[in-house]
Formats: sequence, C-alpha cells, structure tokens
Amino acid sequence: MPRRILVVGGLAAGPSAASKAARTNPEAEVILFEQGNSISYGICEIPYYISGEVEAEGLVAYTPERLKKEKGVDARILHRVEEIVSRKRFIVVRNLATGTTSEERYDRLIVATGSRARTLGVKGESSRNVFHVKSLDDGRNIHKFIADEHPAKAVIVGGGYIGMEMADALRKRGMDVVVLHKHALPMSGLEPATREMAKKVLEEQGVRFVPNVTTEGFLVDAKQRVTHVHTSAGTFEAGVVILALGVTPNSELARNAGIRCGVRGGILTDARQQTSLDNVFAAGDCCEVKNLVTNRWTYLPLATIASKAGWTAGENAAGGKAVFRGAIRAIAVRVFDTEFAQVGVGTAEAEAAGFAPVTETITGWSKVAVMPGSKRLTITTIADKKSRRLLGANVYGKEGAVLRANTLAVGIQHHMTIDEIQQWDLAYSPPFSPLWDPILVAANATAKKVRLS
Amino acid sequence: MPRRILVVGGLAAGPSAASKAARTNPEAEVILFEQGNSISYGICEIPYYISGEVEAEGLVAYTPERLKKEKGVDARILHRVEEIVSRKRFIVVRNLATGTTSEERYDRLIVATGSRARTLGVKGESSRNVFHVKSLDDGRNIHKFIADEHPAKAVIVGGGYIGMEMADALRKRGMDVVVLHKHALPMSGLEPATREMAKKVLEEQGVRFVPNVTTEGFLVDAKQRVTHVHTSAGTFEAGVVILALGVTPNSELARNAGIRCGVRGGILTDARQQTSLDNVFAAGDCCEVKNLVTNRWTYLPLATIASKAGWTAGENAAGGKAVFRGAIRAIAVRVFDTEFAQVGVGTAEAEAAGFAPVTETITGWSKVAVMPGSKRLTITTIADKKSRRLLGANVYGKEGAVLRANTLAVGIQHHMTIDEIQQWDLAYSPPFSPLWDPILVAANATAKKVRLS
Repeated sequence: MPRRILVVGGLAAGPSAASKAARTNPEAEVILFEQGNSISYGICEIPYYISGEVEAEGLVAYTPERLKKEKGVDARILHRVEEIVSRKRFIVVRNLATGTTSEERYDRLIVATGSRARTLGVKGESSRNVFHVKSLDDGRNIHKFIADEHPAKAVIVGGGYIGMEMADALRKRGMDVVVLHKHALPMSGLEPATREMAKKVLEEQGVRFVPNVTTEGFLVDAKQRVTHVHTSAGTFEAGVVILALGVTPNSELARNAGIRCGVRGGILTDARQQTSLDNVFAAGDCCEVKNLVTNRWTYLPLATIASKAGWTAGENAAGGKAVFRGAIRAIAVRVFDTEFAQVGVGTAEAEAAGFAPVTETITGWSKVAVMPGSKRLTITTIADKKSRRLLGANVYGKEGAVLRANTLAVGIQHHMTIDEIQQWDLAYSPPFSPLWDPILVAANATAKKVRLS
Repeated sequence: MPRRILVVGGLAAGPSAASKAARTNPEAEVILFEQGNSISYGICEIPYYISGEVEAEGLVAYTPERLKKEKGVDARILHRVEEIVSRKRFIVVRNLATGTTSEERYDRLIVATGSRARTLGVKGESSRNVFHVKSLDDGRNIHKFIADEHPAKAVIVGGGYIGMEMADALRKRGMDVVVLHKHALPMSGLEPATREMAKKVLEEQGVRFVPNVTTEGFLVDAKQRVTHVHTSAGTFEAGVVILALGVTPNSELARNAGIRCGVRGGILTDARQQTSLDNVFAAGDCCEVKNLVTNRWTYLPLATIASKAGWTAGENAAGGKAVFRGAIRAIAVRVFDTEFAQVGVGTAEAEAAGFAPVTETITGWSKVAVMPGSKRLTITTIADKKSRRLLGANVYGKEGAVLRANTLAVGIQHHMTIDEIQQWDLAYSPPFSPLWDPILVAANATAKKVRLS
C-alpha cells in the first residue's frame, strides 16, 4: 500500500482527493500543498454571498487544523509546488512564508492545480475595482469593495454563466449593471432560443446586455480605480468591473514534468485518473474530461466533476480501484427568477461530433396547469436521427427546470433513445407535474420530429 | 387497416386510446362508449378542487361535442357496454337514456372499463354524506355538500395516498379531520420510516390518525346523514365521511367474454396492450401491468399508466406498432407542506420477489445548505445485494423530493446498479442542489452499505 500521498492544490479536487485518500487508507500519510491562504471545497456560492443571500460563514473555507481533525489530511497552505521530479518520486515545494524550498518524497502524487481566470490583457486590468470570481478572496474582496465604496454602476465583461450569476447578484445589490459579451447572445453552448430567453430575462430585470463587443481598455483614476470601460461599442461608466471570461487549466506543472496534456491544455488521465506518469494522478480543473455523449476529450471546469474525479484519484492513489467514467456538460444557472439548465451537447457540438442532430422545442407546465403556482417550462431536445439517442437538452422556466434537466441527464449519459425516454414511468401528482410531464411531452415531440425529418 | 374501432370507457385510458386511434388512422371510425354522463382525462385534481386550490373549470370534463371536434372521436355517454361477442366481433350496448340495446360491430375493440372504489360493506355506507373519490361527480358532490352543509368534522376511512390528499384538502377547508386506517401507519408500500414521517406530518397539521382500526358501521340520522362512525377503536363524530379504500378492476365485461385475467383481477395484455382475444385490446385501471423491477404482474391503477397504455392500445388498434413496456410503482403525494414519493419496490416487495434487499436512508438538503429556503430531504434506497441494482426509493421533504424521485425512477426502470448511479453527472448550482446532490449522497451511502452487508 502507498504510504506517502501528496496532493497539489487545495481548492476543489485537491481536498476531495486528499480526504478520500486518507479515508481509503488511514495508515497513509496524506499531505496537501496549497499556494493560497485557505483550503475550500468550491467557490460556487460567491455570487450568492455578494447578492446578500448567503452569509460570510456560508463560504466554506477550511483551516489546516480543521482538515487535519475532520479528514486526517495534513494541509500546508502558502506552499507552492514548483516541480515534479517523477524519476526520483519527489516534488519541489516552496514555502511562500519563508521563501525556502524543500524536496518532498511521494509514493503517489495527485495533481489538482485547478484553473486560472482568463484575462483581457489590456491596461488597467489590475485596478483595485476590477475583480475576477475565482477564489474565496475574490468573493470577499468584491463584497468588501461594495460595502466600503457603494459603486452605483457595474460592468461585467463576459456573458457566460458566471456573468449571468454576477449580473443577478449585483442587480440585487441595487447597481446599474451592464454585461459586455463577445457574442450576439449570452451563454455560449446553449441553443439560440434558450440564449434569447436568457437575454430577455436580463433585460426584463434592467440589465443592459451589449452584444458582439470587444473590451479595449480601462480608464483608471488617480486612486487606481477604473472609472470607464472602453469597448468597440463605446465607453461605459463603471464603479466596479467583474471579469467573467472563463478559465484556463493550470497544467504547466504537469506539462513540465512530461505529463501528457490534451489540445485544450488540460491534463489527460485514464478512467482511474492516472496520468501518463506512473504513480501520478490528476483531477479537477487542470484536467480534460471524457465527454460521455461524444466520447471525445473536452474541457469542463465544473465543481461536480472536480469532486468526483478528486474522489477517484484519491481512492486510487491510496490503493483502491475507483473509476470515473466521464461527464456530460451538465450546467445549471439561476438568472434572476428563471432556471436555466443544459445537459449533454448542443446542436452545433452534436454536428461537429458527427451526429445528425434533430432539434425540437416544447413548452409545458411545471405542475398541472390549473394548480396555483404552475409555471411554463420549455425543453429543447437534441436527438440523433440515426441512433435515435438523446444527445442533449436545454430546460428553462421559473420552477422545476433544473431537476427535470437532471432526469434527462441520466438518459443522455446512458445513451438512451428517445423511444426509451417516451416510456419513462415518472411519479405524477397535480402539485408536482402535469399528467404528461414536460419530459414526456418533449420525448413524444422529439420522436415525431425524428420520424418526419 | 381497421375501419371501425370501438372503445369501452371514457375516464382516462379510454379517451387516450380513442384519440390516439383517431390520430393514427384518420380514416377509421372511432366510437367511445361511456356509461356515465361525462368524459374526462382523470380525476387526480379532485382533492385540490375540494381544498379550494383549483376552480371547478380546472376539472377536465369533455363533452362529446368537444371530443368529436378536437380528437375526431364519436363519444356516446350514458351508453353501457354489456357484452362482448368476440366470435362475431360485436358488442352489446345499452342506451341508458332509452333502456334499449343495440349491437355494434367492431374491427378492433379497446376495453378501458377502469376500476371501481372498494366499499366497506357496512350499513349506512350509501348515506348522502358518505363519498368516494372516484369520479368527477364524486368531486362535485363533495364540494357542493361542504358548501351547502358546512360539516365541521370529517372522517376519512383509509390512509392511502387518496386518504392523505383528502385529509390535506378537508383540513384546508377548516374541518376537524380523523383518518381511520387498518394498519399502524399510513401509505402501505412505503418504507416504515417514510410512513412514520407521513403520520407525523398529519399530526403536526392537526389531523387525528387512528391506526389499526376496523370501521364497523355508521349511525345514520333521519336526514339520511351519517352522524357517527363506529369502529373497533370507538365512535367518531362525522359531518362528512370519505371512503378512500382503494379500487378494484372492472374486468367483468372482459372476463365474461373469455379474456384472460390475472390473480389480482385485472386483464392481462401483451406489450402491445392486446388481450388474449384477437382484435381486442385493453388499457387502464381494468388491467394489470408488468412491473419493470420484478418482471411480475402487478396492479397499479394510476393515471400515468392508463394514459400511456391507452395510447399504445389506441395506436395498435388503428394498425400501428406501439409498445408499452410496463411500469414501476411511481407515486407522488403532497401531504400538506411535504412531498412524498415512492419509485420502484419497497424492501418487503423486493424480498417477496426474490431479491436480497439492502435498505439505506440519508438526509441531505434540497439546495446548498446555506442558501435561503434550503430544506431537508430524505432518501431511502432499496438495492439488491447480489446484482447491486437499485430496486426502489422513497423520497420526502418540503422541496424537490418528487422530481428527484423521478431521476431515481429512471435508474430503477433501466436496471441500473448503484455503482452506475454514483457516477451520474447532474447539473449543480447552489440555488438548486448541494454540490453532491442528495441522489449522489444516497448512492454513495447505499454502495457502502451493500459492500458492508
């Protein structure tokens, strides 16, 4: 059994892997290195902390003491891993407090170096009122800045799902919000009609969505604060700027050690989360992941995947035999009062992967239509004409959209045909769904469209 | 192609079958016979009509004119089918308005005679304040009686899911409600802990639940009204009595024609909904259904099954090739503020079917715990030790229980193992679920319990 298991990275996959390794083999010494000042299990709550829905205590940060006590993991914050010397099975670790380096021997190593926020590469980007949403510190800094300086106008650069969540949060804090997006519609990857609806929801809530725009620069005042954002569509006043441009994998450490990476820049692993190097595992945002719909490598930096892949890496590093099959794209976003979910692939991605997608949209109800509080619910399905498999779905509505998307997600990842989905026996009662749940209405409509197409 | 398709029964499966037959073959003459005075697509809304949540217009009754216009079906209400003469392919129909009978020739016949409410068989049961919940007329009569006579005390005989819904409805109308049940806990079929919770919810809401009780008789006043219910546990005052004793299949018409029935009294069909007689199909509460978990015949008189089986019968009667694979037990009930769902089999049923069930219960949260409005959610899983298949689940909580049960339902009916369910990639965002959805927490706990058991 491996005796010394080292983990690099303390955000999501790292603590998950370390904890699982310690649980799998309580005899092993499990040490986690994190270059930042805290350990956590994710940052998805940040927009809700900023909106005021979640208290500061709701942001889950672990002290090393707590991780030791609760999980049996020896966590060392402010320690940066600078090199993996796989031939001799040690890593080089710099103590950021003292500046000194040391060599730490491993039997098994888990790389969970995560991702970093994409930047614009324009001047003024590091001004003190320009924020990413990538760490607990980012969240705390945004919150403090708003509390201290009461900005009246926010500019969000990026109309992906973090951009949506931040628009919602900042609007709840009473700001005028502008979202600058490089495409015509927010939330790339979803179907055009779903994206139209996301734009509509933003606009109904008073958010200004500026499409097809390039951010060119910032006007910075004497106090190191951006006051205006210059773009290809004019200049926007800003008291606070949020950059929500997506992330890119931190795979340099692995790559420099000769670990195989994919075309999207992420580490490639097998289903046991083992890298191309013996005794070295990897998990989380630094990795690519096998898409269960297309069977191709993809980059899906999501906390759900990080935690499952982390478990798998941790269990296997400790001598277990866990498998992580892969993921579909499964994303949920609340945009003000509306739930949006995507599961599986979109029409364009399906085509690119060699399928012959047939796309259909239905609108049903969340409960029996005459029940109080019943809401419209829209499902767009993407099915393959030849195999009749359901490849993906978008679901949106004011109630019950995300949980229904999850039911469809099961069909998608298990390669079910639209005919099988039509047969689904689902629990029904008027307060919870119509007699024919929108899922079944969508399956019936899709089967018909596939037949006629 | 069949030219003349006759349908017997106008409640749920019948209209579904007739409409589908007419749509499948617009050339066919489709005639539906219903002995009552209206056609409908179900009665599941009745408790919510009585509670005041749904208006009278919310009860979907179809006039024959409307069914003709919208669905192309010739519906004849107040017509009772008295005999099937299969050798000569005709049925004997009595016009209840005139009393006369006629013979109606068919190419294909669909039997959808439904079910009838079980009775107590005690004196006073037909008093004018004693009601079943089995037809739109029942619903209207209960509503009118409450409006006219303002009963202060209600006794519900039967603690199944209709009993629960009616307790909720009558309590909302301000009545004192007593539920008399023959077992120790309400809602047979669910796991004991789930049933304990159902009892607790009833009692929290001021409903008196009387367990292990036999209803022995009624004290009837001069106005033909029950005033007291005599039971093995004493006498209860009653201004209105609801009998919720379950239903029994109306299979006599079919049985008298020689159609094969099962041990539970329902008609047996193949997956095309064809009976043992040529050219005769059947669907709905008059039929048994193949349980997809146990592969045994079972009796599940549910609207979801009736409508799907009805479609299948209708399409096949009209010359199509539809299949209805069967059903799991998929039941959802709202009991006041709490959602209860059962999908698949319970521990006892699993044992009886030859499985080696392992049962595990977890309690999680409906959203990330710190999000406003997050509620506790309890999942009990029943898995088979040998095959590792998930056989069934109970889910309850104040939010998101039923829709999560539906996700589990897909795994159950597709014979997925607990290991496969642990791998499910589900969409996550703090307003909709924890990072590890309760479904995954349940799967992980179940896998562990199966391993240790």
